[in-house]
Amino acid sequence: MVNFNKACSSFAAAVLEYDTNKIVHIKSKKVGAINRIIQLAIIGYVIGYVIIYEKGYQSSSVGLSSVTTKLKGTALTNLSIKFPVTVDGKNESGTIFDGPRIWDSSDYVIPPEENDAVFVMTNMIITPRQKQGKCPEDDQYVQARCVLNNNGSDCTEGEEVITGHGIMTGECVKLDRPRTANDTYNGMCEIYAWCPVEYDVLPMPGTNSGYLLKKDKCLLQQAINFTILIKNTVQFPSFGVRVRNINDNQNKSYLTRCQYSSDKENRLCPIIKLKTIFDEISDTAFEDAAIKGGIVAIRIKWDCNLDHDISDCLPHYSFSRMDNADALIAKGYNFRFATYDVENNTQYRTLIKAYGIRFVILVDAKAGKFDIIPLLRNLGAGLALLSVATVMCDICVLYLLKKKYFYRNKKYQYVDDPDASTSEDETKTEERPDRDQYENMND
Amino acid sequence: MVNFNKACSSFAAAVLEYDTNKIVHIKSKKVGAINRIIQLAIIGYVIGYVIIYEKGYQSSSVGLSSVTTKLKGTALTNLSIKFPVTVDGKNESGTIFDGPRIWDSSDYVIPPEENDAVFVMTNMIITPRQKQGKCPEDDQYVQARCVLNNNGSDCTEGEEVITGHGIMTGECVKLDRPRTANDTYNGMCEIYAWCPVEYDVLPMPGTNSGYLLKKDKCLLQQAINFTILIKNTVQFPSFGVRVRNINDNQNKSYLTRCQYSSDKENRLCPIIKLKTIFDEISDTAFEDAAIKGGIVAIRIKWDCNLDHDISDCLPHYSFSRMDNADALIAKGYNFRFATYDVENNTQYRTLIKAYGIRFVILVDAKAGKFDIIPLLRNLGAGLALLSVATVMCDICVLYLLKKKYFYRNKKYQYVDDPDASTSEDETKTEERPDRDQYENMND
Amino acid sequence: MVNFNKACSSFAAAVLEYDTNKIVHIKSKKVGAINRIIQLAIIGYVIGYVIIYEKGYQSSSVGLSSVTTKLKGTALTNLSIKFPVTVDGKNESGTIFDGPRIWDSSDYVIPPEENDAVFVMTNMIITPRQKQGKCPEDDQYVQARCVLNNNGSDCTEGEEVITGHGIMTGECVKLDRPRTANDTYNGMCEIYAWCPVEYDVLPMPGTNSGYLLKKDKCLLQQAINFTILIKNTVQFPSFGVRVRNINDNQNKSYLTRCQYSSDKENRLCPIIKLKTIFDEISDTAFEDAAIKGGIVAIRIKWDCNLDHDISDCLPHYSFSRMDNADALIAKGYNFRFATYDVENNTQYRTLIKAYGIRFVILVDAKAGKFDIIPLLRNLGAGLALLSVATVMCDICVLYLLKKKYFYRNKKYQYVDDPDASTSEDETKTEERPDRDQYENMND
Repeated sequence: MVNFNKACSSFAAAVLEYDTNKIVHIKSKKVGAINRIIQLAIIGYVIGYVIIYEKGYQSSSVGLSSVTTKLKGTALTNLSIKFPVTVDGKNESGTIFDGPRIWDSSDYVIPPEENDAVFVMTNMIITPRQKQGKCPEDDQYVQARCVLNNNGSDCTEGEEVITGHGIMTGECVKLDRPRTANDTYNGMCEIYAWCPVEYDVLPMPGTNSGYLLKKDKCLLQQAINFTILIKNTVQFPSFGVRVRNINDNQNKSYLTRCQYSSDKENRLCPIIKLKTIFDEISDTAFEDAAIKGGIVAIRIKWDCNLDHDISDCLPHYSFSRMDNADALIAKGYNFRFATYDVENNTQYRTLIKAYGIRFVILVDAKAGKFDIIPLLRNLGAGLALLSVATVMCDICVLYLLKKKYFYRNKKYQYVDDPDASTSEDETKTEERPDRDQYENMND
Repeated sequence: MVNFNKACSSFAAAVLEYDTNKIVHIKSKKVGAINRIIQLAIIGYVIGYVIIYEKGYQSSSVGLSSVTTKLKGTALTNLSIKFPVTVDGKNESGTIFDGPRIWDSSDYVIPPEENDAVFVMTNMIITPRQKQGKCPEDDQYVQARCVLNNNGSDCTEGEEVITGHGIMTGECVKLDRPRTANDTYNGMCEIYAWCPVEYDVLPMPGTNSGYLLKKDKCLLQQAINFTILIKNTVQFPSFGVRVRNINDNQNKSYLTRCQYSSDKENRLCPIIKLKTIFDEISDTAFEDAAIKGGIVAIRIKWDCNLDHDISDCLPHYSFSRMDNADALIAKGYNFRFATYDVENNTQYRTLIKAYGIRFVILVDAKAGKFDIIPLLRNLGAGLALLSVATVMCDICVLYLLKKKYFYRNKKYQYVDDPDASTSEDETKTEERPDRDQYENMND
Repeated sequence: MVNFNKACSSFAAAVLEYDTNKIVHIKSKKVGAINRIIQLAIIGYVIGYVIIYEKGYQSSSVGLSSVTTKLKGTALTNLSIKFPVTVDGKNESGTIFDGPRIWDSSDYVIPPEENDAVFVMTNMIITPRQKQGKCPEDDQYVQARCVLNNNGSDCTEGEEVITGHGIMTGECVKLDRPRTANDTYNGMCEIYAWCPVEYDVLPMPGTNSGYLLKKDKCLLQQAINFTILIKNTVQFPSFGVRVRNINDNQNKSYLTRCQYSSDKENRLCPIIKLKTIFDEISDTAFEDAAIKGGIVAIRIKWDCNLDHDISDCLPHYSFSRMDNADALIAKGYNFRFATYDVENNTQYRTLIKAYGIRFVILVDAKAGKFDIIPLLRNLGAGLALLSVATVMCDICVLYLLKKKYFYRNKKYQYVDDPDASTSEDETKTEERPDRDQYENMND
C-alpha cells in the first residue's frame, strides 16, 4: 500500500506539470508604443468589425423560400390577321383575330405558373388555324427554294429542311407569299408541316404579317402598366421563424391600394408596376425588352437580425436586366407554344411565337441570432491575430533599432551542436561549451 | 577548391540551424492537474466531437438532385354551371359541366410537370365558354358601377378597370347578376373583355356561382386520398456514386402495394398519400389548404456515409407548410389558367381560377467519405486548441496562485530599454544593466 | 504639472512594453537541414499550390445564371390510331391521327418553357377524343374485373379503382378490348371516366395500340437529330461582370452554321445535337432513353479568371445521365398531359402519356479576381504552417538525437513548485531552489 501510494505520487509528480513559453518582457517606449498601437488596431478590428459590424456574435442561417406571383392588368389590341395561304393546294385564311381583343393575365402569362419565375408576353407572331398537310416552306429557307417545272429536281422527298418547318414531299410549288430574296427561284419545295407555316417576321410597318404596328412598339403596349404581386414566404427552420413580405398588420385594403416604389413609404408594398421595374434598371428601356424579349431579375433580400423584433425583418427589392440588352446576335427572348383544338375530326392548332419579359425571382434570405459558439470562435481567431503585433515589434527590435544586437541576445539563446566540432573538425571534444554565447545570455 | 569547401561549409553553418521556443516547464500538482484536465477535455472534444461525431475524417460533398413526381387518384364531382350572362347584348349560358364528371391527374396537375414542384388543384372557379366581346364588368369593381340612362357619364371610353377584366366601351348597361352592394347604382360599365367575365366567388352555400358546395369543403374532396409518387435520383460526382429513393432490390409489386408512413416499415416507400402529409403537419388541416390553396414543402434529406455500404444510404422525408396558414390577408394560393378552342371561327376559352396545394420538393443531399486531408486538417486545428490549456494555466499561475511572483520571474525575462535613461532622463549612461532583473532570472 | 508629467511618464513606462517569446537558436547541421527542407516544402506548398495553383491571391464569387433553351428539328410519323371503344354503351373510334403527321418543337417541348430545364417528347401513348361518360375500366386493373350477368355483385357503386381511371357505377359491362389475362372474368366494371380510358401499352410490335412500331424504336425517331440551343448569361454582381455563352464577336451566320462537338473548334458552339450528347454519355444509348424516357444533365461550367481578359472566360459543357438507365423498377420518365376542346357543348380532351428526355441544365459559375485580403489571409495561414517544421525538429532533437538530454536542458527551463515540499512532505521549507536545474540552465 505504501508502495502503491509512492508510485501514485511519483506518477502524479511526473504527469502533473505544464509547459509554457518563456517570455522576454521588453520595456522600450518606442517599441512598446508600436506594440500597443498595433494591438489596439487589432482589438478594434476584432471588436468593431468582426464582432459588431459583421455580427460575429450571431450564428447565421440561410432561409428556405417560396415564391408565387400574380399578374394583373389588361391590354387591348385591334388585330386583323389575314394573309393568303395555300394548304393541300387550296387557298385558306384564318380570321379569328379580327377586331378588338382583350388580353388578360391568363392569356399573357405562359405557363400559368413556374417555380420562382414568371413570363409576361408582350409581343407575338400569331399563326392561327394550322393543320397537318402539305404546303410550301417559308422562302427564307434557301435550302427549300426551287424553280417550278424543273421536274422537282430541287426538292428531295423525305429530306428535312434544316431548322425549318417540315419534311419535303419532293414537289416544287408556287410561293404563297411575296418573294423576299432576289435569287433566281420562283417556287418553294412543298413540305409535310403544320400548314400554313409560320411567317417569322415581327409585326413592323411595311411587313406583310397581317397586323401593322407603329415602329418600335410591341403588340401589348399596355404591358408597361401591368402589376406583379409577389408573395414570398421565408422559413428559417433552425430558428423556428417564418417571415412574409406581406404584413398581417396592414389592413386588407392596403393590398388593393399600394404600389411599390423605392421611397420609404412604399418600398414594402409587394405589388410592383412593370414601369417601376424598368425605371429602376438604368441601362435598358421597357420598349427594348418588350419588342424582342428579355430577362429581368427581381432580387428579394432578407437580412434578419433575430435579436431584434421580428417585425424589423423586412425585404428589400432590387431589379436588374439579366440578359445582354446590347447583344448583337441572339438577342432577346422568345419561345413558341401552341393551343390545340379539333373540329370535324381535324386537329387545328394556333401557334404563337411569344416575345416577352421573363422575370426570375431570386431570393437571398439569411438570418442571424446570438450564439455563444461563433462569438467565442471569432474572439479566439481575432485574438490570435495579436501575435501579429509581436511579429512587427520583433522585426523592429531585432533588425531596425540601433541596439538590435543587445535585444537579439536577450531574445535568442544560442546553442551550438555539441557534436559539431567532432563531426566537422574531426577532433574528439565531446561538448563545446561555447561560453561566449552563454555569457552573452547573461550579459 | 579548399576555399570553395570552406565557403560552402560556413554557408551551411549559417543556414543549417533552427529556432524553437524556450519552454518553462513547471512542476506543480495544482496547476498541472488543471493543465491535464483541460488538455483531456480538448482532446476529448477533438477526437470525440470533431473527428468522430462530426465525421471530421471525411471529405464531404453536396449531391446533384433530380426529382420527378407523378400523381394518382380520381375525384368525382356533380356540377351544374349555369348562370345568366350577357354577351354583346344577348343572353348566353354555358352548360358543359353538367352532371357527373371525373377529374384525373391530367386534369388537376397544372402544368403537367415542373422543376422540383407539383401543383394539385383542389378547388376552382370555372368560367366556361368565354369569348371576346362586350359585356358588363363584375359589380365588385366600384370604379365600374354606373347609373343607367345617365348619358354614360359614369363610364369613360378606353379607360381600364383597375385590376378588372377589361377596358370600358363608354356604355352603361344592365347588371347580369344579382347586385351585391347596397350603393346607389343599377348598372355596370360595359367593357371589352372575355365575356362573360369571371364571377370571383368561391363556391359556397348561398352564393350564386352555379354549383353549391357544403360549407368548408373543397370541390375535389377526394384529393385527400390522392397519392404522390416521388422519383428522386442523387448524384455525387466527386465520389462517383448515384443513389435513388426507389430500391432496385424491392420487387416490382412493392411500388403498387406500398404507401409511405413515418413508421419503420414504410418510411422508404416513395408513394405518399396527401392525407399522410397533412397528418404529419400538425399546425394546419387539409381542408384549410384545399379550400383556399397552400404551399407545402416536402423535404428529402440524404446523409450518406460512403465508408459504409451504399445500401445504408437512405432518404428521410419530412413535411411542412411553407406559407402562413393563419395569415389574415393574401392567404392561400391560386392562379388562373385557360384552355382555348375554336368553333365556327370564334375562339372560346374556359377560364379556371385554380386553388390548390403546391408541393415544393427540397432535396438536401450530402455524402462523406474517408479522406486524409480533412482528417489532418481537423487534427491540426484541434490540437492547436491545446494552447488554450497553457493560457488557462498561465492565468492561474501568474495571477491567482500565492506564489505568482515566483512564477512570473520564471516565465518572464525582463529586459529594459538600454537607451531608456538616455532618451528620457537626458543622461548619458550607455547601458543600464538592471541587475535585479537578471539576478531574478537566475534566482 | 510636474506631478502630472511624472504620472504620465510612469504610466507610459508601465504600458509601453511588449512580450516576445524567448527563442532557443540551435545550430546543428542535421536538424538544421531537416528544418530547412521542411520549411522549403511548406513554402513551396504555400506559394506553389495555395497561392498560384489554387489562386489564393484572388477573391472569388459565384455567378447568377439565367438559362433559356430552344429546340429545333421536325419528325414525321405515319400513324393510324383506331381501336374499338365503348362510351356510354355506344361504339366510337377516334381517327384524327390518320396519315402523315409532322411534330415540331411546339408539339414535342412540354411545357413550352421551364426554369433551367426542357423536356423533349420522343415517345407517347395517344388517347384521342376522350369525353366524360361511362365505360369499362382497362382490364389490367384486377380490382375491376367482373363476371357478366352476376347481378353486378363484383362492382361496388362509388368505389374508386385504385390508381385507375375513375369511380365505379356498379355495373359490369363487356370488355371493349382483347382480354389480356387468363383469369375467369368476361367483363369489366363500368366507371365514370374520361372515355375511352387509356390503353397503357407502349406502341410495340404485336400490341393492339393501333399504331405499330419496329422493335426498340421510339415514335419520334428523328429526335436524335434535334438540336438544342442554350442561351446562358452569367452575372457576377460583386465584380460587375456579365458573360454569355454566345460570343458577340462571331458573325450572325455562325449561329446558323455551327454545331457543338467536344473538339477545340466547336466546343463553344451553343447549338448541341441530341446525338452528340448521347455519344458523350458512354453508359447509355439514345434509344434506351427515348423509348422509356430519361433525365440528362447538361452542366455548364464557368471558371473565370478576371485578371485575364474577359474574352478568355469561356464555358465548358458536359453531359451525364441523371437517372439510372439500368434500374429494374420504376425506370424511365413519363407524364401525362391533355389538351381540351369543346364541340357541340361537349368537352373533349386528347390525352398524351409522354415519354421523353428531360434535360436539366446545371450552371456552375465562379470567377476570381486579385484581392489583397485573401492573399494576406492565405499567406498568413500558410506561413503559420512553418511551426510544423519546428515541431518536427523538436521531436528530432528532443527524442531522437543522441544528445537529446543536452538539448532538452537548453529548451526547457525546469521550475518546481516551491510549495511542493510543503504540501506534500509537510516540511516547512519555503522554497526549494532546485539548483541542479538552474545550473543546467546556465550549463
